[in-house]
Amino acid sequence: MTSSEIQRVTVLGTGLIGTSVALAASRVGIDVTGWDPDARTLMRAAATGALAAADGRAQAIAAAQLVVVCAPIAEVAPVVADALRDAPEAVVTDVASVKGAIVGAVSERVGAIRGGMARFVPGHPMGGSERSGPEHASASVLDGIVWAVAATPGTDPAAAELVERFVAAVGARPIRMTPERHDRLVAFVSHLPQVASTALMGLAATEEADEPDILLLAAGGFRDLTRLAASNPALWGEILGANQERIAEAIDRFVVRLQRLRTEITEGRTEDVVRSFDEAKRARLRLAAKPTVRAGVGVLQMEIPDRPGALARLAAALGEGGVNIEDLQIVHSPEGGRGTVHVTIAGSEAVTAADVLRGEGFDPVRLA
Amino acid sequence: MTSSEIQRVTVLGTGLIGTSVALAASRVGIDVTGWDPDARTLMRAAATGALAAADGRAQAIAAAQLVVVCAPIAEVAPVVADALRDAPEAVVTDVASVKGAIVGAVSERVGAIRGGMARFVPGHPMGGSERSGPEHASASVLDGIVWAVAATPGTDPAAAELVERFVAAVGARPIRMTPERHDRLVAFVSHLPQVASTALMGLAATEEADEPDILLLAAGGFRDLTRLAASNPALWGEILGANQERIAEAIDRFVVRLQRLRTEITEGRTEDVVRSFDEAKRARLRLAAKPTVRAGVGVLQMEIPDRPGALARLAAALGEGGVNIEDLQIVHSPEGGRGTVHVTIAGSEAVTAADVLRGEGFDPVRLA
Repeated sequence: MTSSEIQRVTVLGTGLIGTSVALAASRVGIDVTGWDPDARTLMRAAATGALAAADGRAQAIAAAQLVVVCAPIAEVAPVVADALRDAPEAVVTDVASVKGAIVGAVSERVGAIRGGMARFVPGHPMGGSERSGPEHASASVLDGIVWAVAATPGTDPAAAELVERFVAAVGARPIRMTPERHDRLVAFVSHLPQVASTALMGLAATEEADEPDILLLAAGGFRDLTRLAASNPALWGEILGANQERIAEAIDRFVVRLQRLRTEITEGRTEDVVRSFDEAKRARLRLAAKPTVRAGVGVLQMEIPDRPGALARLAAALGEGGVNIEDLQIVHSPEGGRGTVHVTIAGSEAVTAADVLRGEGFDPVRLA
Repeated sequence: MTSSEIQRVTVLGTGLIGTSVALAASRVGIDVTGWDPDARTLMRAAATGALAAADGRAQAIAAAQLVVVCAPIAEVAPVVADALRDAPEAVVTDVASVKGAIVGAVSERVGAIRGGMARFVPGHPMGGSERSGPEHASASVLDGIVWAVAATPGTDPAAAELVERFVAAVGARPIRMTPERHDRLVAFVSHLPQVASTALMGLAATEEADEPDILLLAAGGFRDLTRLAASNPALWGEILGANQERIAEAIDRFVVRLQRLRTEITEGRTEDVVRSFDEAKRARLRLAAKPTVRAGVGVLQMEIPDRPGALARLAAALGEGGVNIEDLQIVHSPEGGRGTVHVTIAGSEAVTAADVLRGEGFDPVRLA
């Protein structure tokens, strides 16, 4: 089977993610119908050309092969269960950041629905945008990202495969894992970093009450560690509440590791401290170099001279070469500094980008 | 007194920081003599034009008003003590990342040296570069950074003032604090973030042994939190070893805060979780907006369209306007995304930069 067999998809919830999914699907010729309980949001989504606005939820799902539920976490389970009931032939998937709690809540509601859990394929695209609303949607939000397909033991394999084909068709990279494993892994690499960032920023803010100058001394490293702390509190309240045990386990292991470092430091075991730092450094360099961290991207590293126009020359050269810069980072030392740049582009454009940059006198090294 | 009264400075240790100090001093007409125990390093430093290479340490400090010791942490105290002894009229300062341990070690060595501790002014420029070696030195490394002047109770006020004038003359921002207070504050905003980043990366690397796919799910937030983990292990072994008690205290408070969040999460106290996140978010937004975080810089935020050449147009406009981009960040949401850019430029160029960008159709908002 090929992705061309997916012909009709319904998106329930047409905010940024729902509309981005619709744009990416319609880009490859899939008919997309959309519905949102907020009529204005639906109208704005339809205005992007990504989807046909349905007159109601029932009409929206009537002809769907696949229903993609893009609702806020608390509303996902009821919307999924209603879709399973009212579209008895369709496969239903969702995009929420936690999976176990959603599976449990859907399971409770499914009851006698024909084929119920067999047609439900929990999913989680590991990407997004700091913006919200359908007018900020873009198919590129999904380009090359990892999209967890968290089929349950009760999921029909054909349903899971349909979702995987859809994910690949919209340009993302499906990775199959159980809901439990998904929740355990994101607890470590997404939820724990969020909690650590929030705790560090909260601590510094408390110290600031006694030491008004403390943040004067905060350099680039502190800013890196606390950037996540500016995330949406209500959204994170929901996510953390829905993955409590896994997050508790991740926090516990993090605390054990902090306390081990603390002991090494206070006992003056400098060799052990250096070894711990060295292990982490090697892991971080593997991460930076990992071509699979995000499928489909290339990362070029180069030095740039410290004068007006140097970065402009770099960016202009890529722009003229038709290469879209996905990310650009001036790499900092622990205490600031500048001069080395990491440029992220589509993997397919990496060779072109490197050639263009060499032609401008830069000396790019490909990291991924 | 004005900064023009500082006429002769000696830099002992001509690596990246020492040579950057020399460049920044010679830029404002100060005579700089340099010495380094490594003859090649000294030669490379002299080749930058920043300083006159001395034939030996004794000659280097003979005529100095101010000796700036830029040696590795373990060597700072003996070099400072020797300079206090052999240059009996000079003020001596250092640039190490910890201060209490250095003061203690210098104090033990000073003994009967005339004016000993009165002429020692511990210092710490809160900046640097990820590169090393004199050929990567630049006066701009010091531009606008906070430079802690950590005078002890025994320091002659005139000596501390001389160092403050020197710091201001080279373009940095002197902030007076005791060595104890310096070490306490950097434990929270520099050493703890480093330890947390290393612990998080080490933890993920350990989990990876069981879960090879874990880092596939690591998005921008995880990368932000673990960037510091790639720092120099040996340097951090020295720094942490020299500030043990303060770091232990900072780790303990961090752990308490993590465990408080853990309890709020596992007890399902979503309102408390949201309040903790909200407090941290507000503190982080204050930090982002704080014009004094780094003196002398301006930060402009704007959205950029997601297509080839958009970033190039931004950078080119600034380059043509003569504005040097100090830092450029594509701001990420917790789970990736793009579109909003923060550009850091010299504060004096912020108005020009905003005008130039508006002329190109961007809509910059000044954050700092």
